[in-house]
Amino acid sequence: MLKEITSLQNNLVKDVAKLHQKKYREKLILIEGKKAVLEAIELKVEIEKIFTLENLPEFNNFETYLVNDEIMKKISTTESPSTVVAIARKPVYDIKSFLSFKKIILLDNIKDAGNLGTIIRASSAFGVDGILLFNDTVDEYSPKTIRSTAGNMFKIPIKKVNIADLEEFKKEFNFIATVVNSNKNFSDFKPKGKMLVMFGSEANGLCNDLLKLADEKLTIKMTNNVESLNLALCAGIVLYKLQE
Amino acid sequence: MLKEITSLQNNLVKDVAKLHQKKYREKLILIEGKKAVLEAIELKVEIEKIFTLENLPEFNNFETYLVNDEIMKKISTTESPSTVVAIARKPVYDIKSFLSFKKIILLDNIKDAGNLGTIIRASSAFGVDGILLFNDTVDEYSPKTIRSTAGNMFKIPIKKVNIADLEEFKKEFNFIATVVNSNKNFSDFKPKGKMLVMFGSEANGLCNDLLKLADEKLTIKMTNNVESLNLALCAGIVLYKLQE
Repeated sequence: MLKEITSLQNNLVKDVAKLHQKKYREKLILIEGKKAVLEAIELKVEIEKIFTLENLPEFNNFETYLVNDEIMKKISTTESPSTVVAIARKPVYDIKSFLSFKKIILLDNIKDAGNLGTIIRASSAFGVDGILLFNDTVDEYSPKTIRSTAGNMFKIPIKKVNIADLEEFKKEFNFIATVVNSNKNFSDFKPKGKMLVMFGSEANGLCNDLLKLADEKLTIKMTNNVESLNLALCAGIVLYKLQE
Repeated sequence: MLKEITSLQNNLVKDVAKLHQKKYREKLILIEGKKAVLEAIELKVEIEKIFTLENLPEFNNFETYLVNDEIMKKISTTESPSTVVAIARKPVYDIKSFLSFKKIILLDNIKDAGNLGTIIRASSAFGVDGILLFNDTVDEYSPKTIRSTAGNMFKIPIKKVNIADLEEFKKEFNFIATVVNSNKNFSDFKPKGKMLVMFGSEANGLCNDLLKLADEKLTIKMTNNVESLNLALCAGIVLYKLQE
């Protein structure tokens, strides 16, 4: 059911453009790019509407709107606009389901949307079961984060938590803190049991509330002392090793 | 010797702003931020001129210019302008010196300035001796790359090379290719001798000319098959492991 929108003033166009801003993404999110939309569909993300530059048979079963270049530019967040943009319902995950997982990561106060997306992508690759977001971490459904996941946005449940939520986890999981100044080398760590691995913010590391919960504090060994490593790169090293 | 510049039309201001563009960075480069400039000085990078918002005693021995906010905004490349910007001579490294190194990486056709900077930073942390850039890799002295190195820009020699340059290296180094589809798991690899580790572009991996030179082709094992990992994250995993 292909409808056509030709006016930039169309209310639907305005509604989609609003989703560029976090405050409007309470229930709905934006997915950009044909590949990303197809992947979301495959992963049973609830697609509400799709906007395309041409009639694409893949989207025949969806409420699809044909738009022109000008409108696509307005609803895209990228400099070179996508050819497909979709509105989807934000997935809702139950915190209880995380308790049955074996390997969870927690991200504290991450500020860089690209870092977050890269970590989600690596988590998907290296068998992480779920991701918890703590403190004022950047919105996981920002267009830049979704882009940085390179198609891995919807494969792992992601959930915002507070300190009280973590009490239940503390009963079942080993809490591993990654820090810059421990004398315990991460390479010597032997994983066992259910793990919750915590990564702190780019600027300040893990907050004290989380450090207090840590059963282990581990540091990535460096040949030369650089002040710190890129956060996503750290997470990549840790998650790679933990799957071995 | 503190001079003051008050006009946006000052030729020096225009010259600095030109360094935002690659084509003007043949001999000179821009270093932004007090910390980055101090680190460059410590690493004996030749500083030509420094521009600051206030009189800073650290820079007393340099040709320093006091500028206003408006000028600083014009010569900075960041949205929130630095308080210090310097012009420096681009370091020149002799290709022959690389032959005496033990561990070199080669980056083929890397397009993302942030990825390049993050890899330079990780190389510095994990004891890489030198970095070779191949094909049309993004300018290593772009402001975004320098920023992404987080103060590690000048610790390791970096040099552009062509295929003929690599002949000499081939005689002395084991060429390791990181690829997405080898059945050799990187984790099983036992490093020996002098190593030259090659990473390909975000989009296309290593070019055929380089693949032909490879003594080993290794792949990073993933629990779940995601299409590929972020390049800098891959490099981080490989370089971390190779120092162990």
